[in-house]
Amino acid sequence: MRPYILISNDDGYQAGGINHLIEVLRPIADLLVVAPDGARSGYSCSITTQVPMKLNLLREEEGFTLYACTGSPVDCIKMAFNILLPRIGRTPDLVIGGINHGDNSSVNTYYSGTMGIVTEGTFQRVPSIGFSLCDMAKDADFSACDEYIVKIVQKVIAEGLPPYTCLNVNFPKGEIKGIRVCRMAKSTWIKEVAACEHPTYGFPYYWLTGEVKEYEPEATDTDRWALYHGYAAITPQTLDSTSYSLLETFKL
Amino acid sequence: MRPYILISNDDGYQAGGINHLIEVLRPIADLLVVAPDGARSGYSCSITTQVPMKLNLLREEEGFTLYACTGSPVDCIKMAFNILLPRIGRTPDLVIGGINHGDNSSVNTYYSGTMGIVTEGTFQRVPSIGFSLCDMAKDADFSACDEYIVKIVQKVIAEGLPPYTCLNVNFPKGEIKGIRVCRMAKSTWIKEVAACEHPTYGFPYYWLTGEVKEYEPEATDTDRWALYHGYAAITPQTLDSTSYSLLETFKL
Repeated sequence: MRPYILISNDDGYQAGGINHLIEVLRPIADLLVVAPDGARSGYSCSITTQVPMKLNLLREEEGFTLYACTGSPVDCIKMAFNILLPRIGRTPDLVIGGINHGDNSSVNTYYSGTMGIVTEGTFQRVPSIGFSLCDMAKDADFSACDEYIVKIVQKVIAEGLPPYTCLNVNFPKGEIKGIRVCRMAKSTWIKEVAACEHPTYGFPYYWLTGEVKEYEPEATDTDRWALYHGYAAITPQTLDSTSYSLLETFKL
Repeated sequence: MRPYILISNDDGYQAGGINHLIEVLRPIADLLVVAPDGARSGYSCSITTQVPMKLNLLREEEGFTLYACTGSPVDCIKMAFNILLPRIGRTPDLVIGGINHGDNSSVNTYYSGTMGIVTEGTFQRVPSIGFSLCDMAKDADFSACDEYIVKIVQKVIAEGLPPYTCLNVNFPKGEIKGIRVCRMAKSTWIKEVAACEHPTYGFPYYWLTGEVKEYEPEATDTDRWALYHGYAAITPQTLDSTSYSLLETFKL
């Protein structure tokens, strides 16, 4: 039987990245796509608790079904596992978030809706991978990622991933020199808020903006080092965020 | 000089939990409160990228300033560090999220706006703590937490926390037998979506709901074990979510 893959993203089902991913994977797998009905960048692992959600079937072809959901990226995965997959009667071999328009390495992992999808897929006990390209452009060129995506997808379908563990894969913009398995660089955002004034009434309002500041720019084993040197970065991540070192020493 | 604490929450500035926390901490610290202008439960580490935000000064007294923000819990912390604190000219000794109305242990950490605040405070390089009570009621009684909160806050202000590390503190409902330092229990949500029908037009819509399923209910060293046995649970967490074990073994 062909592999069965559940796909979502945080840029919405119309985005270039998810449609490129669908094109790359359709020849090798059956696909269920449940994606937000519009942009949900920066939605992290957020869930919709205050309003109900709707689900709309947009396409149904041999080996390919597409739903749009009014909720968050994580909601899409919850809707798939709780409503659609039991109806279809299949369990996915893999959950994929992406391909994201923009860098989800290092600190960005925490804000990323793409990695929200991957976290949720892992909690649903299915091996899960996030793919992101370090290019936020709407018409970004994803084609250099294809061979790596197919290789990683086939490996994870064949071998699985340990429980509570997932993969965060980021691709550099442009040519890809190769791939490196990396730890997450320690970094933070700075200069994060731009203050503006209403053009007529003068009241202040604020946009998020900013740049990433690295705490360890000299380290060569990180995802950010790999990306800045033209390599794709695979960062294996755990959902057990216990600090075992502090667990040993913290006494009240 | 008195300690200076930045407080936010995900239930909104009007909520009982944050106002109880303010009452408990005002005698021992100066407080800057920047909280959402309404409920933001389940907002995780989400950030507002598609619309601008506003900030409203609601109260300004000796040692206590309160702003409401139209953004997410994480946005509140970013607004504080990027706009308010530079203006005020002070750096907080501590960032606190809470007291949340509801359990943020184990898997809930990932969806929690309270823990989003704590994650963000840690990225801003200030020791950060989340406080949550396992009682979602609007009029929940937070008073049993007071002595523990004061003790934990004073310890962390005096001793700090290691970089990229924070504390997730959950209190059981009712009497508290004591406190345990715990790892995060492995669990997931199940039966997560309830399908409904529009009363007139019959179209389907969906609410998130569900219950937590533990993968290791027999383990006695977890946050969930502590809470179910009447203890407060302190879980030290790291923001380096690299899976170092898979990093060693993953080869493409």
